[in-house]
Amino acid sequence: MTADDRNGFAWAKGHGTENDFVLLPDPDGSVHGGFDTATDAALVAALCHRRRGLGADGVIRAVRSAALAELGAGEARRAALDDAEWFMDYRNADGSPSQMCGNGIRVLLCWLVDEQLVDGERAVALGTRAGTVHAVRGPGGQWSVDMGPVSVLPPSQVGVGDRVWPAIGVDTGNPHAVVLVDDVDQAGPLTEPPGHDPRVYPEGVNVEFVAPVGHQHVRMRVHERGSGETRSCGSGAVAAAVLAEQFAGGVARPATYRVDVPGGTLEVRLRENGHAVLTGPAEVVARGTLTWTGHELR
Amino acid sequence: MTADDRNGFAWAKGHGTENDFVLLPDPDGSVHGGFDTATDAALVAALCHRRRGLGADGVIRAVRSAALAELGAGEARRAALDDAEWFMDYRNADGSPSQMCGNGIRVLLCWLVDEQLVDGERAVALGTRAGTVHAVRGPGGQWSVDMGPVSVLPPSQVGVGDRVWPAIGVDTGNPHAVVLVDDVDQAGPLTEPPGHDPRVYPEGVNVEFVAPVGHQHVRMRVHERGSGETRSCGSGAVAAAVLAEQFAGGVARPATYRVDVPGGTLEVRLRENGHAVLTGPAEVVARGTLTWTGHELR
Repeated sequence: MTADDRNGFAWAKGHGTENDFVLLPDPDGSVHGGFDTATDAALVAALCHRRRGLGADGVIRAVRSAALAELGAGEARRAALDDAEWFMDYRNADGSPSQMCGNGIRVLLCWLVDEQLVDGERAVALGTRAGTVHAVRGPGGQWSVDMGPVSVLPPSQVGVGDRVWPAIGVDTGNPHAVVLVDDVDQAGPLTEPPGHDPRVYPEGVNVEFVAPVGHQHVRMRVHERGSGETRSCGSGAVAAAVLAEQFAGGVARPATYRVDVPGGTLEVRLRENGHAVLTGPAEVVARGTLTWTGHELR
Repeated sequence: MTADDRNGFAWAKGHGTENDFVLLPDPDGSVHGGFDTATDAALVAALCHRRRGLGADGVIRAVRSAALAELGAGEARRAALDDAEWFMDYRNADGSPSQMCGNGIRVLLCWLVDEQLVDGERAVALGTRAGTVHAVRGPGGQWSVDMGPVSVLPPSQVGVGDRVWPAIGVDTGNPHAVVLVDDVDQAGPLTEPPGHDPRVYPEGVNVEFVAPVGHQHVRMRVHERGSGETRSCGSGAVAAAVLAEQFAGGVARPATYRVDVPGGTLEVRLRENGHAVLTGPAEVVARGTLTWTGHELR
């Protein structure tokens, strides 16, 4: 892909609880050449740069599963078989691909409904690298997504500076170490990844610090593997709800937990079948076309 | 202005040395209602929010001087008399109006030339709250602006933590205290405004830490009054060049100084008539229309 190919392509920007994304509409998988080269990682990083680019936590390429399956992408083939018309090709701000993003998938559905590309009155199957998920529009600008089954990992310890806390382990597709604190500020500035047990988390871990606020209501700060402290993390909110359930004691499923994050509020419903349903706001705030120059791809 | 009025309005995003701006085209001064209400400050702050909005250091409303003059704006009347067809209504990220922005004026001219609204082969007069300035396109993506006369303020002292440095004072339309250091990292993290002499700077001051790199070549970090440490400051680069001139000793004007900032490189030409000409990159990276919701204006 040359710099010229990038000029004039369409994009949108949206966020969910201040986790923000550049969305690239690519219905037939042709606009961005399949996003499978090193150049694409550089493009994603340039788009996400907060001064030289548009600025975002990640990029969501919205591509039809059928088009992607033709290009040989295995996950897209599965999504197409699952009747997921659209596939979320999610990239982190550094350009690396990611499995799933609980805030991003709501923004994707919000955009698809706004563009009348899917029926906003029904649950919609959406393909991701972590499998097909189902999402639905709720009232009042809220969007819900079934994040799939949640399981428990062994307990471990988490450390910041001189302090060490016990942590429960939660697997939401990606691993979380969740710490109960009196006050989320106790963790101090999370400028470095918190220390964790490499036997439980050989590939690193997201760490959530969770403080009780009220009945089935907690506050959370999160340090995301590879991203640092963020304003919100959807799967982290699910992990926080699992801790809140243990803390509450004896609350029967299904039950809903409110999780306040720095960027807003999320709700997590823990269901009897072990699935977690994440609900929160999503909105598309701008659309446009991009004038891009080779100069940007430093 | 209601939330509905904001939907679908045009904008662009650009930056100069990573000082980034949302540009709002408003040729006849009608789109944004003259930008003179408290609501407009909230709109600017929402646009500049780096997660919920587009994200920028400031907003440049591009409006024809004649249209603004009809609305009774005194600065625009002067600009119209000066044959400045376009006026830069510059707002800081918090919504407050500002006099002038050396990086922003280059981005404005870049956009005007791209849109063929001015002749890119000639120097262009542009109105600002600090008066009319002249800017011109150079080769290689560089843009130059005559920042007007530069004068010297009394020497004073600047402090960060336990350290105190002597500082020269430079007035570029806004006040600067400029400190010579061996290494710009000596100032440490500039999380708080550096201490300064309120007798010299009763309304606060921009502070530049400037280290020699080579002949007529310095590196600079800047703490901007009201913004904190930034990636670049055009008038700060001019102030740094004045210090570099004193440090170099005996360099006759006109002479050009290179100023490396965290976001790139600027050049400052100090002229015999006391004016400074700032040269640096500028580019418009995206254009679009905005979908805006009342929800954003928290």
